[in-house]
Amino acid sequence: MPELSPLPPVVIEPVIRRALEEDFGAAGDVTANLLVPEKNTARLYFRSRSDGVIAGMQAARMTCAMVDATIEFGIRKGDGVSVKPGDIVATADGPVRSMLMAERTVLNFLGRLSGIATLTSKYVDLVKGTRARIAATRKTTPGLRVLEKHAVLAGGGYTHRQTLSDAILIKDNHIALSGGIENALVGVMKHADHMVRISIEVDTLEQLKHALPYGPHVVLLDNMTPDRLREAVEIVNRFYGPRPTLEASGGVNLDTVKAIAEAGIDVISVGAITHSATNFDIGLDAS
Amino acid sequence: MPELSPLPPVVIEPVIRRALEEDFGAAGDVTANLLVPEKNTARLYFRSRSDGVIAGMQAARMTCAMVDATIEFGIRKGDGVSVKPGDIVATADGPVRSMLMAERTVLNFLGRLSGIATLTSKYVDLVKGTRARIAATRKTTPGLRVLEKHAVLAGGGYTHRQTLSDAILIKDNHIALSGGIENALVGVMKHADHMVRISIEVDTLEQLKHALPYGPHVVLLDNMTPDRLREAVEIVNRFYGPRPTLEASGGVNLDTVKAIAEAGIDVISVGAITHSATNFDIGLDAS
Amino acid sequence: MPELSPLPPVVIEPVIRRALEEDFGAAGDVTANLLVPEKNTARLYFRSRSDGVIAGMQAARMTCAMVDATIEFGIRKGDGVSVKPGDIVATADGPVRSMLMAERTVLNFLGRLSGIATLTSKYVDLVKGTRARIAATRKTTPGLRVLEKHAVLAGGGYTHRQTLSDAILIKDNHIALSGGIENALVGVMKHADHMVRISIEVDTLEQLKHALPYGPHVVLLDNMTPDRLREAVEIVNRFYGPRPTLEASGGVNLDTVKAIAEAGIDVISVGAITHSATNFDIGLDAS
Amino acid sequence: MPELSPLPPVVIEPVIRRALEEDFGAAGDVTANLLVPEKNTARLYFRSRSDGVIAGMQAARMTCAMVDATIEFGIRKGDGVSVKPGDIVATADGPVRSMLMAERTVLNFLGRLSGIATLTSKYVDLVKGTRARIAATRKTTPGLRVLEKHAVLAGGGYTHRQTLSDAILIKDNHIALSGGIENALVGVMKHADHMVRISIEVDTLEQLKHALPYGPHVVLLDNMTPDRLREAVEIVNRFYGPRPTLEASGGVNLDTVKAIAEAGIDVISVGAITHSATNFDIGLDAS
Amino acid sequence: MPELSPLPPVVIEPVIRRALEEDFGAAGDVTANLLVPEKNTARLYFRSRSDGVIAGMQAARMTCAMVDATIEFGIRKGDGVSVKPGDIVATADGPVRSMLMAERTVLNFLGRLSGIATLTSKYVDLVKGTRARIAATRKTTPGLRVLEKHAVLAGGGYTHRQTLSDAILIKDNHIALSGGIENALVGVMKHADHMVRISIEVDTLEQLKHALPYGPHVVLLDNMTPDRLREAVEIVNRFYGPRPTLEASGGVNLDTVKAIAEAGIDVISVGAITHSATNFDIGLDAS
Amino acid sequence: MPELSPLPPVVIEPVIRRALEEDFGAAGDVTANLLVPEKNTARLYFRSRSDGVIAGMQAARMTCAMVDATIEFGIRKGDGVSVKPGDIVATADGPVRSMLMAERTVLNFLGRLSGIATLTSKYVDLVKGTRARIAATRKTTPGLRVLEKHAVLAGGGYTHRQTLSDAILIKDNHIALSGGIENALVGVMKHADHMVRISIEVDTLEQLKHALPYGPHVVLLDNMTPDRLREAVEIVNRFYGPRPTLEASGGVNLDTVKAIAEAGIDVISVGAITHSATNFDIGLDAS
Repeated sequence: MPELSPLPPVVIEPVIRRALEEDFGAAGDVTANLLVPEKNTARLYFRSRSDGVIAGMQAARMTCAMVDATIEFGIRKGDGVSVKPGDIVATADGPVRSMLMAERTVLNFLGRLSGIATLTSKYVDLVKGTRARIAATRKTTPGLRVLEKHAVLAGGGYTHRQTLSDAILIKDNHIALSGGIENALVGVMKHADHMVRISIEVDTLEQLKHALPYGPHVVLLDNMTPDRLREAVEIVNRFYGPRPTLEASGGVNLDTVKAIAEAGIDVISVGAITHSATNFDIGLDAS
Repeated sequence: MPELSPLPPVVIEPVIRRALEEDFGAAGDVTANLLVPEKNTARLYFRSRSDGVIAGMQAARMTCAMVDATIEFGIRKGDGVSVKPGDIVATADGPVRSMLMAERTVLNFLGRLSGIATLTSKYVDLVKGTRARIAATRKTTPGLRVLEKHAVLAGGGYTHRQTLSDAILIKDNHIALSGGIENALVGVMKHADHMVRISIEVDTLEQLKHALPYGPHVVLLDNMTPDRLREAVEIVNRFYGPRPTLEASGGVNLDTVKAIAEAGIDVISVGAITHSATNFDIGLDAS
Repeated sequence: MPELSPLPPVVIEPVIRRALEEDFGAAGDVTANLLVPEKNTARLYFRSRSDGVIAGMQAARMTCAMVDATIEFGIRKGDGVSVKPGDIVATADGPVRSMLMAERTVLNFLGRLSGIATLTSKYVDLVKGTRARIAATRKTTPGLRVLEKHAVLAGGGYTHRQTLSDAILIKDNHIALSGGIENALVGVMKHADHMVRISIEVDTLEQLKHALPYGPHVVLLDNMTPDRLREAVEIVNRFYGPRPTLEASGGVNLDTVKAIAEAGIDVISVGAITHSATNFDIGLDAS
Repeated sequence: MPELSPLPPVVIEPVIRRALEEDFGAAGDVTANLLVPEKNTARLYFRSRSDGVIAGMQAARMTCAMVDATIEFGIRKGDGVSVKPGDIVATADGPVRSMLMAERTVLNFLGRLSGIATLTSKYVDLVKGTRARIAATRKTTPGLRVLEKHAVLAGGGYTHRQTLSDAILIKDNHIALSGGIENALVGVMKHADHMVRISIEVDTLEQLKHALPYGPHVVLLDNMTPDRLREAVEIVNRFYGPRPTLEASGGVNLDTVKAIAEAGIDVISVGAITHSATNFDIGLDAS
Repeated sequence: MPELSPLPPVVIEPVIRRALEEDFGAAGDVTANLLVPEKNTARLYFRSRSDGVIAGMQAARMTCAMVDATIEFGIRKGDGVSVKPGDIVATADGPVRSMLMAERTVLNFLGRLSGIATLTSKYVDLVKGTRARIAATRKTTPGLRVLEKHAVLAGGGYTHRQTLSDAILIKDNHIALSGGIENALVGVMKHADHMVRISIEVDTLEQLKHALPYGPHVVLLDNMTPDRLREAVEIVNRFYGPRPTLEASGGVNLDTVKAIAEAGIDVISVGAITHSATNFDIGLDAS
Repeated sequence: MPELSPLPPVVIEPVIRRALEEDFGAAGDVTANLLVPEKNTARLYFRSRSDGVIAGMQAARMTCAMVDATIEFGIRKGDGVSVKPGDIVATADGPVRSMLMAERTVLNFLGRLSGIATLTSKYVDLVKGTRARIAATRKTTPGLRVLEKHAVLAGGGYTHRQTLSDAILIKDNHIALSGGIENALVGVMKHADHMVRISIEVDTLEQLKHALPYGPHVVLLDNMTPDRLREAVEIVNRFYGPRPTLEASGGVNLDTVKAIAEAGIDVISVGAITHSATNFDIGLDAS
């Protein structure tokens, strides 16, 4: 795996700004303001309370900086690092009031994004030793796609399309509404932009056979059992022509993913790693 | 329960705008543009594939309207309605291209928000017959708080603080950093705004007894067993003075919530209903 | 009084950005650009030309910083400090051009916000020795609420509701449109969120007596004379049940506020301190 | 006077959006939501409680439309119309909840802007029969300039510079910091854009005499008594060359403005009409 | 060619909003406001004054709608249609003031975008009969990429990458800074997302031969003469393995493009069609 | 010429932010992220490949700073400086990845804005020795006006109106739609704001003679030949009354501008310098 790249600040700053505005309301932390003298400083500890993989540290650090530029946020466990309960994942040094103001937003980012990284890593571990990668879908939380896709990378997965405009994915509804696979592929292969990959979703092996001669870059095998997927791989291997990337989706869970991978699939896309990850528990402690 | 109120459009429009921008990228749905003639219209069906409670219909409708004002979005099952697999929850009539462009964003909103309503309703069902309400926390997905809190209402829950500035909640870190419960309460009760409720978190029955005489409006009993909570209720009932609302939090899950409610608690706040709800499965079908 | 807390930068930055955009137009200060060489630096003095109380220093400093990060803005009289004509309230050191570009916006913030603090302090002084506080309403200048409420704090007042969603205030129109005080209070006391305070406006002592048994947290006595208010206080004192906070509003001015406070009221809310404060005169001098 | 033009919606929409966001907070009007059934409709009346001149009707109508597009807002007294206590200035027909949500923001706009129009009209009335116009300055409330300047027009005044970049105004600080009036005017007259007017502020008649030969389009006579202004007018009348527009500012109030106008001045600019106008009282009544 | 799809309104609305804000300044069209009575309506004609291809009609129509929703904008010549001087390309019916306010912004959009479509169409015409397409680059005007790329489509061209994140293009600087072509391709082919196309820029035939075995999807032949390009095509045709798309760039102009296309290239990318198109002249006439 | 002033950062920051967002898409530079290790730093050189005049350096530097605050951007040839092919115009030192991410946006700004400055300077050179200035119009690229007008200044030109609200320009359509020149001028001269310049467009010498007695500040002579312009100058010189500034527009190009200037015109406004400037070629080199 290549190094995980930070996201461009200009892309995630608005996300963090909105999160803070939404949490601060009109006046900020009225509780801390009444209780904590403005001058008090401290070191606080972000501590893991679960087993898993960390993600969201860039958002966490930027959250602190946007609340108060004098907070020093020290990352102990960066994105992609595995942790266990009790591990200190980050420290914050600075004005107590500011840190308490930032606390909930930081934890909401770390909890959701580490939850995604952790769930992703479980899928990734199960397919180790096969050729399969785990990829995210566009089934992400509205407004957080870029961060959630990044959390998938932190968990060892891959991203897939980011938007509706950066690749072509011909799905069942498109096929139904445009007159069949052949029609769809002929039009798309001819007119699509040359820098865009073309994928087609097939539900049956018959459809797969129809699609192959048109040279799609990717074939998405939807909702097939491992046995059926194995047959699909064999059909493709026997095909005399450029081999498309084979992607499986549908019915993928922690019980089935290994068998799907072992069928010889290249990419397994899993909506659950973004849309059904649960919170990763991190707390903020005074020591 | 009173009617569920729609949210002010001016509040949720920016959330939907960002979700669409993030999904469209630079050019919108290049696949549909190549495959579906601009004039084609159809009726499509949003169909439940799970058991649960619907939420997010206002966001779904506004998403369609912002993609194409000519889409007619017909709500069959409004927020708060229980559905089972196969139920049509909404219909959309309009240009096929526009509906396919809106599809993923609509499903992401409905999936996440109905997931929250569904999980909330499970907690709410378990406490029926007690005096307890289920309330959300601020442990929401960054950028979606207002919609997620609304989904909790759809599931039969309550909202709690929306922001750091609309109520006072004195938590363990505040107490630790301001010299004890008494100090904290004296200052806060004296200086807080008269339109703001004051809550204090206590971890032990000792702390509860210390807090009561200062007249907090709410006492948050953190991480106590049902037995301990029962004792807390008794302490409060015996207290000669204004009775605070009693809220329990920490260690609340579907196995424990009934016993906690039966201890006589007024409010049970549950982070999991927002931060660990999984996706509610809805599909878009051509018939 | 507790320390006055600065507002979260993320909350006021957009307000200042808009103020600067509105004053700069397309190209900034064409006069200074033609007349003052870019390299010239100086120290300039913000000097009070009136008696009163300062507010808005945080906005003033941030304005300078957003015009030119190299301007050093030195606060001599912070928010809440009383000044007299001739007092230097702040200094600015930096490029002359930048300081002249910032001048009008800085003065507009200081003038309006110190005007509010000054008027507030006059009311506060008049009720000294009574139990009454002076509170602002939502009658603020559109777009400036958070800063104007903060200016009220600087003048020794309190804030009241910040938004329509952070507390419940049942007003005459609500009562008229929902079937009377009892109906209104029964519904609200039962269903309102437990972290939200409930206030009801009454116009007569009869209404007060009807409202009391439902346990509103606050009763707003609207447009009553000091004598009538005194009677209201007595009714509440004789009431066997939790004592609501008593708030008076309507007909409050510098001539009447003392008598109202002496009637035993807890809170006096005054729209005029925000909506009818006049400008506090501050000038920018070269020496 | 020409017809008063409405402002471009694209210019004032963001102002209204922010005002609504600031007043709604996270969830909108929790009081109305609990008390008023969603279906209830009514006609409500905006009624004047003072004598004066109306302004802000465009903002009021757009506020209602942005809260709920089904509210019909009927203007009875448009911008610039004089009203007395009891006059109905506008009606609103629509859902009660929506109208109550919009109420405070509408009243805040009407109150502030009609306050400005009313105060302006007092100055304008006092100079009737002279050649003088009353003009606003840039001493406006941050974020509201365009609406406040428009309110000045409604009161019969004129606008002056809108921004730092649309005209040149050489003030005392510029002169002090660029080496005297002559230097300043030579540079500016030569290099300024040909579509930009040039004004210079003078504090003495000596300065006026120095400035005249350079041909400034406007001379701003700052802080002069009516007698001194009369002398200034005479100096200008005797000057052989193009006559600049003469503007007076400083020390202008309702007691002095008539004498200043009668000195023969063309324009009298008054900061007070924007920065020190008090609220114009309008109420919302159910009948 | 497939139908040209309109862009999602949510994507271009902010572009138009900014264009209007920038042209209106604080108060809109002060000239029209003084001269044209608010009630006057008319039909105005947008008339071509050049030969070329139209683009930007969606932006033009939305501009009118955002200035005044009552303007009816009738498109006579849609995007992609060829026109000659004197042709009416669109009509506008509505309030004269509003149409004059919109005029310059509409013309600026139509002029720039039709200029791009027109220049593109010249390149496209020259390569007719060959296999080559003309494609845009990212050398677009900052802030207008999506509209300028769409104008290229209107002229018969193709889009190429929209952003840095939707495809991989390994350029000379990347190769220089990462240790040669082989290193670059090995890493990228292995780790790139499966929905992303991979292109590599080569400057020599040697580099082309090195790159081919790694299976890049696209090879960008930079700055080669038609003869050299012909050799490159032959090398690729003789290569036993998947044939990459061949793209030529650099040194492409209206004199050379035909020969480049006839060398057998698949895609010719031309910065000039976006960065050096000149204005297409359209006027607004009263008849 | 006075020093060229930098634009207020608050004005151009949003322009640059949008340019970066548009170029980064969801995830930033996926190519550089895969190929260039995060820690690598270098010095890169922005080198001119054409003859001309530089503009846009402020935008270029701010672009780099917004991508990565650690990039040091060194300006070698500031706005307004003439360069030839091979000249290093700027250097950048910092992380290679960040600089490659910023590259295209920086070059797009420099290319467009230097293109404008360069074309402007050609016009300016041709009118040297005459009294004429070259001025830009509002025919600018939507969203870039402020930067494009600034580039005109860098090329030695002037700006003209920035917006529809900062000066009055009575054009042919206004005259046609308001009943003739006299009507138009009478209304405007009487009611226009005193800080606003008034210009009227005339197409014939007859119109010029009609306009003069009303005292317009500027007369715009549209589409006249040099001979006709010379007559116009004479008419004005013979006119007994204040001399308006004379502006010529229409039919101005590099072949005609000298003769137009020599006719004695004060200002020549040229749409082409902004709407038809072609790209100025600058490259980014590793050495």
